[in-house]
Amino acid sequence: MTAPDRKKLAINQATTMTQWTLREAIEGYATKDIRGISVWRDKLAECGVDEAARILKDNNMTVTGLCRGGMFPANDDAGRQAALDDNHRAVDEAAAIGAQCLVMVCGGLPDGSKDMIDTRKQVADGLAAMLPYAIDAGVAVAIEPLHPMTAADRACVNTLEHALDLCDALGDGIGVAVDCYHVWWDPKLEEQIARAGNRILGFHVCDWLVPTVDLVWDRGMMGDGVIDIPRIRGWVENAGYRGFNEVEIFSERNWWKRDPTEVVDTCIDRYQHFV
Amino acid sequence: MTAPDRKKLAINQATTMTQWTLREAIEGYATKDIRGISVWRDKLAECGVDEAARILKDNNMTVTGLCRGGMFPANDDAGRQAALDDNHRAVDEAAAIGAQCLVMVCGGLPDGSKDMIDTRKQVADGLAAMLPYAIDAGVAVAIEPLHPMTAADRACVNTLEHALDLCDALGDGIGVAVDCYHVWWDPKLEEQIARAGNRILGFHVCDWLVPTVDLVWDRGMMGDGVIDIPRIRGWVENAGYRGFNEVEIFSERNWWKRDPTEVVDTCIDRYQHFV
Repeated sequence: MTAPDRKKLAINQATTMTQWTLREAIEGYATKDIRGISVWRDKLAECGVDEAARILKDNNMTVTGLCRGGMFPANDDAGRQAALDDNHRAVDEAAAIGAQCLVMVCGGLPDGSKDMIDTRKQVADGLAAMLPYAIDAGVAVAIEPLHPMTAADRACVNTLEHALDLCDALGDGIGVAVDCYHVWWDPKLEEQIARAGNRILGFHVCDWLVPTVDLVWDRGMMGDGVIDIPRIRGWVENAGYRGFNEVEIFSERNWWKRDPTEVVDTCIDRYQHFV
Repeated sequence: MTAPDRKKLAINQATTMTQWTLREAIEGYATKDIRGISVWRDKLAECGVDEAARILKDNNMTVTGLCRGGMFPANDDAGRQAALDDNHRAVDEAAAIGAQCLVMVCGGLPDGSKDMIDTRKQVADGLAAMLPYAIDAGVAVAIEPLHPMTAADRACVNTLEHALDLCDALGDGIGVAVDCYHVWWDPKLEEQIARAGNRILGFHVCDWLVPTVDLVWDRGMMGDGVIDIPRIRGWVENAGYRGFNEVEIFSERNWWKRDPTEVVDTCIDRYQHFV
């Protein structure tokens, strides 16, 4: 693989989540000529949606995604309605800041449940219920399959194949976010990325550390782990993807403790060599 | 589901790994009228194979599996030959104690490698190389798909589908071990268990804790987590499996710190209600 296009480097603000507000992240990335950012809703709320839209525009920043919608499964109708309402709000926010997609973390087992089949049905139903609203708002919905180690408590959609089966059933307006960290292990990955084709709405990169000491908050900087990211990027590009390559790192023990400018500089450096 | 047959309760000695030698485990389980055990090779070596065979026979104990063969991928031919030699020794040991199968933990990326495709090819080649020896010895080989969170450093065979694809390619003499902990999250599990049919050589149970604090050593006792084990047992039995239900728990923070008799009593109690 040739090195990736520098102009396609985006950073998910979770990468500097503990250090920077949304304004600081936008300005901090833009200072380094990074023009893509994924935004988190808690940070967006803190900033205010209108103010955020202004700062993003002033910095010529593409919003590669809004994190996150989803979390559909619940133990009762009230819980499911609350989830639907929240997903509608997420769509509104995504539209307001011009996000290229709303990233869906679909949700895991409701409290006390062991029923993965019903939980997956609730996810399918939830996506079907919110999709027309997203289509009306012009917001693309991206199902992000999460690593199987998150199946119980975060997302019961754990393979690209499963996400694409959902997309097939749901029709237009919905696609997938391919995050290397979640899918790198999958022996069917190449085949399923090809199947995804133009439904790939986002491509996320970071690395799998050996050892990994936490199931959620221990992602690695590209180059520090074992994922062959260029190979996966090649498959994604062969499928037709031409969007940003978005760095998304949750790292309690390392990157979240560092100076955020150093983190951004490291992302830029590693991007050239390991993405 | 009706409760499982008490006579089909087996315990993998890893469940009392820190507390008991092989002799102590055999006698400790047999005292509670548990007649199935899976044996680990380090404990077997410590005891001596001939002596272990005698103790097993004296206690009327079925060896549901020997843990473990596999670990095929290496960076050079010498490493691969060493792995093959070790697998032949494992077959000899399995034959000597009459194990119903040799459990294969296939191995992850060799040091420094990021090439999952080549690593998987090495696993397929390694299985093909050792299988004739196992067939000659009358030892059934059981590929155990491990959870995807172990893909880098333990096993690059992470779904039952992948394991069965390998079995299809390899022919007779090889099957799978279905461990609930590793496969419970898989949306294709029911379908793939049906596909497996009489190739299911072992069925392992424990539970997935929320939260899980370690990627390897934090398994839960049945009933303490979120896996619907009876449902999976039903699928396995529908596929024709009539063997033991084997409790296998690695638990640094809990069960490995307890009195082993209490652990066994808890296994017996939970088996009736949560398997």
